[in-house]
Amino acid sequence: MDIVGDVDAMKAQGHDVISLGAGEPSGGAPAAVNRAAAQLHNADGPVFNYTPSLGTQPLREAIAAHYRTWYDLEVDHESVTVMTGSSGAFVSSFIAAFDVGDRVGLARPGYPAYRNILRALDVEVVDLPAGIESNFRFDVEKLAEAHAEKPLDGLIVASPNNPTGTMVPRDDMRRIATWCAENGVRLVSDEIYHGITFGQDRGTSAWEFDRNAIVISSFSKYWGMPGWRLGWMLMPADLAPAVSGLAGSISLCPPAAGQYAATEAFSTEAYAESDAKVAEFARTRQLVLDNVDRLGWRHAAPADGAFYYYAQPAEKILQRYGNTVDYAAAVLEHAHVALIPGVDFDSVDGDQFIRVSFAARYEAVERAIERIVEFDSTIS
Amino acid sequence: MDIVGDVDAMKAQGHDVISLGAGEPSGGAPAAVNRAAAQLHNADGPVFNYTPSLGTQPLREAIAAHYRTWYDLEVDHESVTVMTGSSGAFVSSFIAAFDVGDRVGLARPGYPAYRNILRALDVEVVDLPAGIESNFRFDVEKLAEAHAEKPLDGLIVASPNNPTGTMVPRDDMRRIATWCAENGVRLVSDEIYHGITFGQDRGTSAWEFDRNAIVISSFSKYWGMPGWRLGWMLMPADLAPAVSGLAGSISLCPPAAGQYAATEAFSTEAYAESDAKVAEFARTRQLVLDNVDRLGWRHAAPADGAFYYYAQPAEKILQRYGNTVDYAAAVLEHAHVALIPGVDFDSVDGDQFIRVSFAARYEAVERAIERIVEFDSTIS
Repeated sequence: MDIVGDVDAMKAQGHDVISLGAGEPSGGAPAAVNRAAAQLHNADGPVFNYTPSLGTQPLREAIAAHYRTWYDLEVDHESVTVMTGSSGAFVSSFIAAFDVGDRVGLARPGYPAYRNILRALDVEVVDLPAGIESNFRFDVEKLAEAHAEKPLDGLIVASPNNPTGTMVPRDDMRRIATWCAENGVRLVSDEIYHGITFGQDRGTSAWEFDRNAIVISSFSKYWGMPGWRLGWMLMPADLAPAVSGLAGSISLCPPAAGQYAATEAFSTEAYAESDAKVAEFARTRQLVLDNVDRLGWRHAAPADGAFYYYAQPAEKILQRYGNTVDYAAAVLEHAHVALIPGVDFDSVDGDQFIRVSFAARYEAVERAIERIVEFDSTIS
Repeated sequence: MDIVGDVDAMKAQGHDVISLGAGEPSGGAPAAVNRAAAQLHNADGPVFNYTPSLGTQPLREAIAAHYRTWYDLEVDHESVTVMTGSSGAFVSSFIAAFDVGDRVGLARPGYPAYRNILRALDVEVVDLPAGIESNFRFDVEKLAEAHAEKPLDGLIVASPNNPTGTMVPRDDMRRIATWCAENGVRLVSDEIYHGITFGQDRGTSAWEFDRNAIVISSFSKYWGMPGWRLGWMLMPADLAPAVSGLAGSISLCPPAAGQYAATEAFSTEAYAESDAKVAEFARTRQLVLDNVDRLGWRHAAPADGAFYYYAQPAEKILQRYGNTVDYAAAVLEHAHVALIPGVDFDSVDGDQFIRVSFAARYEAVERAIERIVEFDSTIS
């Protein structure tokens, strides 16, 4: 995630860099959330004390209601724990659910933080290849195979996935969740990109099939609130004592002001505003898809959701640069566009892929495309 | 830390509960910080994106300058890492500095989160008694003794300490830090209560003697910003790669808006305001000290700093209730005052002690004292 630093450094040198690197939307929080926050901060000397460590009750209730609205699911607010971003939810839930030496399956390519946190906790990460050879789909057969070879204790599934944007279709999610429940494998379902999808499907929650799964979500993506550091978890009953016991020690509580304002994220107005942003992501995504050939890229993962496009550059690029680390460095140096090389997400095949974030504004992505196209014309 | 929940529940039932439980000041952030935050939130649709994972450069520089101001220490801003509260700093630094099976010394009584986090990481906690038998002082002889018995890998020292408020005098801190450096024991110095002290000494930083120590501090106490979830760490050079590598995964970044506003915490105005709050804590502390006999308490730890008084109730109380868990429950039920039983901080002798926080306003503490005095008169 050091792309932020690299781009900042180039900008400090006076370069007009367009970042297609950062995994964050550019528009900010819904207006209703911003209004609520402004009001809170305008009060005469606002006092933001610790909140209950699992979050304020109104926000936990608002999140529970969101599961009725989006998924037609009854969730008790006591099962909802507000966390300091999905990062906080991952750290807490991994500590609560897994022991040293446990084996946890992880689709490759995938979000590097899972791997980093698990390794820091001395949990063994088991690679489950879900790359180009399977059209970036992850299915229960692979899972069962890995488990038969040597039993797994956990599985992390992200849909839409980062870096690919690829989704697990509803039927596959049912099969995965059911298999996990039957085989005593703890499912961790990363649902932070739910709502940012480009078909009928807003994303399937693992809790539709298995309430022993850990569901993790966030205000960072659909609601455009990355810097607020607010996320949540649906907590299986058997993990409640461990999570409740640890929350005060690990985080004390999530940021207070943000919790008070975030209840507004579930207003009709805020949903409509976020949906409009998703429509704009869809337009930007289409722009990327329409220009893939001109950009010099080819095979890519199905970009079903999130705001990522995960592509393999054309042969001439890979031949010239050998790998996408050097290609991305050249694009940054010559075209002043930041892309993320796939090695951050896949240590085996990632050097053949790049991740493009189209979370930046349409016009920025449009300009970036023209710069890369121009740069591509210089590669023989 | 479930006192927040218990008190909230009683309040919800219509009881006028005074909490002397919570370890948080009641006054809120310095006005300059609040003004900066209000301005940030008032802007037309503020966008709070991820910041660099170790914090914004202006805030890291402002914190570095604080070490010149308070400690006459030159600290490079690159050694300063902004963290999501001191909690975030503890989790990150413990993961970076200690391995499974390492042995880390911890003064007893002490802040329970250290123990909880270390145990969650399968690090062995070695109790170093620093209770009434040594007037709550922790010294290098005890440390050397424990290390000779079986080597330690780390040591956590908090000065002022929670729950006692007792400080490690400057000469003792020098001896401890020097001993740790010479014996390859990683010192973690919790300095979050620095500045809230009642003598000449604002608190000694471990970095005055050993830059291999991990120094942890926070905006929560002296600056009154608990709910903002902002703290920092002075990071030893040898841990920099691990901490930098993990920060993006563990927390992504500290809360963005708070980081922008918190640079104002180091303004002359904000220091003066916080110092005035410390003077008010001193007045409230004196009120407690003047009423110890009437309250029915006796021996207590030297309350040099922080806003805690750690006392052993009189014999008649301990005889009647057997322990301070039941005594605190009775005080909450009958006097509607929340105190924290010492077992949260000391599993061996804590049942003979209570922690009183005088961080609430003077008038609230005054009323609480009269309630407890009245309740005490009913105990024969």
